[in-house]
Amino acid sequence: MKTFTDKLIDRIKEKNSILCVGLDPQVRYLPQQFSEMNIEDAFFEFNREIIDAVKEFVPAVKPQMAFYERYGSAGIRAFEKTVEYAKKKGLIVIEDAKRGDGSDTAIAYAEGHIGKNAFLEIDAVTIQPGLGLTCLDPFINVVKETGNGIFVVTKSSFNPSSFVENLQVEGKGKVWEEISKVVNELGQEVKGEYGYSNVGVVMGSTYPEDADRMRKLIPKAFFLVPGYGAQGGGADEAVRGIDEKGLGVIINSSRGIIYAYRKGDYKCTDQDFAQAAGQAAKFARDDLNFSLQRKLESK
Amino acid sequence: MKTFTDKLIDRIKEKNSILCVGLDPQVRYLPQQFSEMNIEDAFFEFNREIIDAVKEFVPAVKPQMAFYERYGSAGIRAFEKTVEYAKKKGLIVIEDAKRGDGSDTAIAYAEGHIGKNAFLEIDAVTIQPGLGLTCLDPFINVVKETGNGIFVVTKSSFNPSSFVENLQVEGKGKVWEEISKVVNELGQEVKGEYGYSNVGVVMGSTYPEDADRMRKLIPKAFFLVPGYGAQGGGADEAVRGIDEKGLGVIINSSRGIIYAYRKGDYKCTDQDFAQAAGQAAKFARDDLNFSLQRKLESK
Repeated sequence: MKTFTDKLIDRIKEKNSILCVGLDPQVRYLPQQFSEMNIEDAFFEFNREIIDAVKEFVPAVKPQMAFYERYGSAGIRAFEKTVEYAKKKGLIVIEDAKRGDGSDTAIAYAEGHIGKNAFLEIDAVTIQPGLGLTCLDPFINVVKETGNGIFVVTKSSFNPSSFVENLQVEGKGKVWEEISKVVNELGQEVKGEYGYSNVGVVMGSTYPEDADRMRKLIPKAFFLVPGYGAQGGGADEAVRGIDEKGLGVIINSSRGIIYAYRKGDYKCTDQDFAQAAGQAAKFARDDLNFSLQRKLESK
Repeated sequence: MKTFTDKLIDRIKEKNSILCVGLDPQVRYLPQQFSEMNIEDAFFEFNREIIDAVKEFVPAVKPQMAFYERYGSAGIRAFEKTVEYAKKKGLIVIEDAKRGDGSDTAIAYAEGHIGKNAFLEIDAVTIQPGLGLTCLDPFINVVKETGNGIFVVTKSSFNPSSFVENLQVEGKGKVWEEISKVVNELGQEVKGEYGYSNVGVVMGSTYPEDADRMRKLIPKAFFLVPGYGAQGGGADEAVRGIDEKGLGVIINSSRGIIYAYRKGDYKCTDQDFAQAAGQAAKFARDDLNFSLQRKLESK
């Protein structure tokens, strides 16, 4: 069967893009025309227009659960409608939930988010490695069964404040390197038809030299790279982890695209927010492709 | 103002109990009479009867978000009704969500779950420390503002599979000890009227000798202790972290209480599940008090 990474690679090739758009609706940033709507409608209608505007330029979208669940069931309804709409438009959906727990609870998270009876057709979910194998194993089991994917938070883009992952383990590597080794091992069993594992990592782009090390530690994993755009990382840093085929990374931008209308360069009104997002997505795609090409040629 | 730990201590004294009941509805374990209902009704009605049966014996309940969110907005509606009902019955609500992310996203989680405009009146939430200060700081800010609490996952009950927290840091302690030190420092600024911090830790009871070490590292924090009952920890191990006043721990039991009706000892039918839960809660409370008294006398 076509697994998560197979579908993702197909879409990357089709769209000629390694860009993922983060669907992170925040009341304070929404265009004025959404201010009278309830949360469910405002978030879904905003996302719907964004999806229509960017779908030509991206293989995937990444809704960040935190921005939906803060409004309880109303927010979750907006999330559900958004995921259904994105799937209908042929996009891969990566749910950014960073869930993590152990035992029965980990099974509930795994089955609930990417299991065969999950409440939505989500392609992949981000998870926390903190609770170790008791958390990872249930997710791996579901990945095996469904062909869906996970991204394990390994090296975030929030250095130096992410102190835990940078601790130096006695006689070994840093914490993030030790997690990477475990992720690599677990990922061997769940590779797709193209040879890429369905167990990927979240790998921040703000410390790019670590991307080289990560690529060595986990050669066949996809890196989900946050921090391109708004968090200060550039395209060269973001693509740093690509392999010799120009694959293995999917790069997320949220605010830089969905709220592009707020930036002076687009000289547009609230009404034109979707058009601005489309332009920003096209620009980001091309920016990343340029860096990707240069990086490939230097190999 | 009365903060989370102040309210918790008041309820602990009032109920003479350090037991917390985990509200973890799972379809496969629910009594037969709930099988025809939809998820929202089944989960809420089950929880409502459990709350009524145990409220005399416990200061707090701890719904585990994983079991609700796996059903999307329907599950979240059951969660919302459950929290509202538990609050109406005078119980402290600790949401077990183990959320964790950085920057804007951490702010959304913090404000959404325990902020002043949160979607529900939750008293405290469990969080992941993996992303470090970028995650913890937004939660601390909200704790300062609202007086609500957080429990940081520090030493789980899933040893030895929780490999990350047990890694030995070069020239320092284990990862969980390093996290504890940071938690202790952050917790100094957010103490309640009784002197206990509103930043607590999740501290598994399966490796009790670590509870002594944890108490030294974080003298004024509450330990939320999972693993009593179903996960194999006994009462002596569970109370190990109490301080000289007999305070500083709140001990959770989920399956051992809410699904007590399934155990042969209660000799009861599906109809009597709530009564069995009440009996099990009373037994667990007394079991813990006995161990607590013995531990205090040995000090």
